[in-house]
Amino acid sequence: MQPFLFYIATIMAEQIFSYQQLYQFTEKIFLSIGCSQQDATTATKVLLSADVRGIDSHGVARLSGYVRLWEAKRINANPHIKIIHQTPSTATVDGDAGLGLVVAPHAMQIAIDKAKQVGTGWVSVGNSNHFGIAGYHAMMALEHDMIGIAMTNASALVAPTFSTEKMLGTNPIAVVIPAQHQPPFVADFATTTAANGKLEILQRKNADAPLGWVQDENGNASTDANILKKKGALLPLGSDREHGSHKGYALGSIVDIFSAVLSGGSYGPWAPPFPAYVPMPENMPGKGLGHFFGAMRIDAFRPTEEFKQHMDNWIERFRKAKPAAGFEKVLIPGDPERETEKERMQNGIPVVEAVVEDLKLVGEKFNIEL
Amino acid sequence: MQPFLFYIATIMAEQIFSYQQLYQFTEKIFLSIGCSQQDATTATKVLLSADVRGIDSHGVARLSGYVRLWEAKRINANPHIKIIHQTPSTATVDGDAGLGLVVAPHAMQIAIDKAKQVGTGWVSVGNSNHFGIAGYHAMMALEHDMIGIAMTNASALVAPTFSTEKMLGTNPIAVVIPAQHQPPFVADFATTTAANGKLEILQRKNADAPLGWVQDENGNASTDANILKKKGALLPLGSDREHGSHKGYALGSIVDIFSAVLSGGSYGPWAPPFPAYVPMPENMPGKGLGHFFGAMRIDAFRPTEEFKQHMDNWIERFRKAKPAAGFEKVLIPGDPERETEKERMQNGIPVVEAVVEDLKLVGEKFNIEL
Repeated sequence: MQPFLFYIATIMAEQIFSYQQLYQFTEKIFLSIGCSQQDATTATKVLLSADVRGIDSHGVARLSGYVRLWEAKRINANPHIKIIHQTPSTATVDGDAGLGLVVAPHAMQIAIDKAKQVGTGWVSVGNSNHFGIAGYHAMMALEHDMIGIAMTNASALVAPTFSTEKMLGTNPIAVVIPAQHQPPFVADFATTTAANGKLEILQRKNADAPLGWVQDENGNASTDANILKKKGALLPLGSDREHGSHKGYALGSIVDIFSAVLSGGSYGPWAPPFPAYVPMPENMPGKGLGHFFGAMRIDAFRPTEEFKQHMDNWIERFRKAKPAAGFEKVLIPGDPERETEKERMQNGIPVVEAVVEDLKLVGEKFNIEL
Repeated sequence: MQPFLFYIATIMAEQIFSYQQLYQFTEKIFLSIGCSQQDATTATKVLLSADVRGIDSHGVARLSGYVRLWEAKRINANPHIKIIHQTPSTATVDGDAGLGLVVAPHAMQIAIDKAKQVGTGWVSVGNSNHFGIAGYHAMMALEHDMIGIAMTNASALVAPTFSTEKMLGTNPIAVVIPAQHQPPFVADFATTTAANGKLEILQRKNADAPLGWVQDENGNASTDANILKKKGALLPLGSDREHGSHKGYALGSIVDIFSAVLSGGSYGPWAPPFPAYVPMPENMPGKGLGHFFGAMRIDAFRPTEEFKQHMDNWIERFRKAKPAAGFEKVLIPGDPERETEKERMQNGIPVVEAVVEDLKLVGEKFNIEL
């Protein structure tokens, strides 16, 4: 199947694919590594939700990485995901080295089921792998009139305040809150000043990073988008101490502890790396990556309709906040991704040429045409 | 009783008080406005925990403010705090316009009790007032081998990304996690680049604020520490869009919604102001300030000893992270406040002259000597 259109965006060549094209290709790849039909469907939906929402770093761009982890036997395509500890409102889940894309929705469903019973559900997951975008899992709560929460630790790229050593991942947090007539509030963000995906975009463009995103190996400010390959590090949200980087460091740490110390996963600098060519850390204190999920039933606090009306009021009031000079309007968390989703489902998903080539190479392994 | 020592710090005159001196004075004030002995004790402990830990903006410096709110009949010194909605893992609490310093520990205790029963407890509180430092309430979980969480909304001083309008409070989050031989992980931070208290310190010193803390009435960068009085605003953690202020805005919003939209409190720009001379907002959508508390039993996820050993390992590893040039060591959230607490319990608590004068004026109202 050939892409039906391509154009040059900035200096990068891109090809446009329909959602269906990418869906069929991706599902076939997951089936080829041995996933069940159900798991392949889930993994594909989760992975592509990133492309559709404009978080290009977490979608098909990572497909070959998952395959390489499977080739390195770091991903189990047929995991037996199981609850290893629980109370009425909590569970600890062993992901059995499965695709995070499959383990995470499974665990989020447990959180939702617990919330149905006792008001809220909280699930810490260990022995897992990269789970795609946090927002997908948190958004599973919406159809149940629940608030959804998802977070994950990740391989260490971030230096704590006052340090030069990479100790934490970009450790994202998603919090999703339903409204009535307004779209839901969907926050989903790395606990760093800039997500690593943003840095990767600059690398491909050969462009500089803004000051405050990264530091060099001595902890000095840097604008080199390739500094992570030169012993540099990403900075916690806040950039430096004077601008609150200790808060971003604390947030990333909380995600690490909830996801991996509570679950028996591998935490901090011992979090397993995503690139399969990077050796696993020595003396890992736990198994695999960790995630943490929460589901809170709205009506465990307040009648659902009443809450949703107030959420509409909240959102409408914030949308009407006076914009600063040069800006059109104030956004609600989730607005940009919703606009991208609408646009891309209509007009297709642009994929940069380097990723297209990468996908083609993966396809060749299994005799699957992009 | 006279302060036993005073000295000049920076350009501000300060007096040193012992914890006991401030405790006795503060408790008498709370008793004088009609608090029960039990509530006066609680309120005093919570308020002074800020002074002891070095968060001077939230301690005795606010005592006269609470009294003025009581005089304005915005604080009820004898609240009937009640659960108005609940499930096994959740409760919604009406603070009956009580002192937040009293309502908050009451609600946190409910969260702890629920966690004992079903693994976790989550309590949203409305119709309350300023609750002191979030960390105090979250730390109540520690002696029960639980993770503690506390947050609160507050009167609007913060402009969302792309806006010039003050829509959110500094909305702090505290997350507290027990360890074994290491001290607990205690994160407690405003979701802004800098807390308002830090700005107040600069105002008293007549000093400029760093770029990135505040903006002027048109949304332009500013270093004027008095800009909030000139229609300026505090900035969300991240400072500007390029450095992730939309993340700080999302965090502050989550705190606002969990605390006040879930509970029936007054949210966003309608949050009641702390200064009693500021009129209450018109068309308030709920009652009073809101808080949100969480307690998670460690052994609801993993055996407690096992978890604590891994937390020790986590903390020890992070303490050993390579420090950047010019810095001695990497800190764990809670370290600076612990050091301050140790020092101040030994050597006394410095109180700036302006606050001492303010306390004396409050004392005179009730014939209580400082």
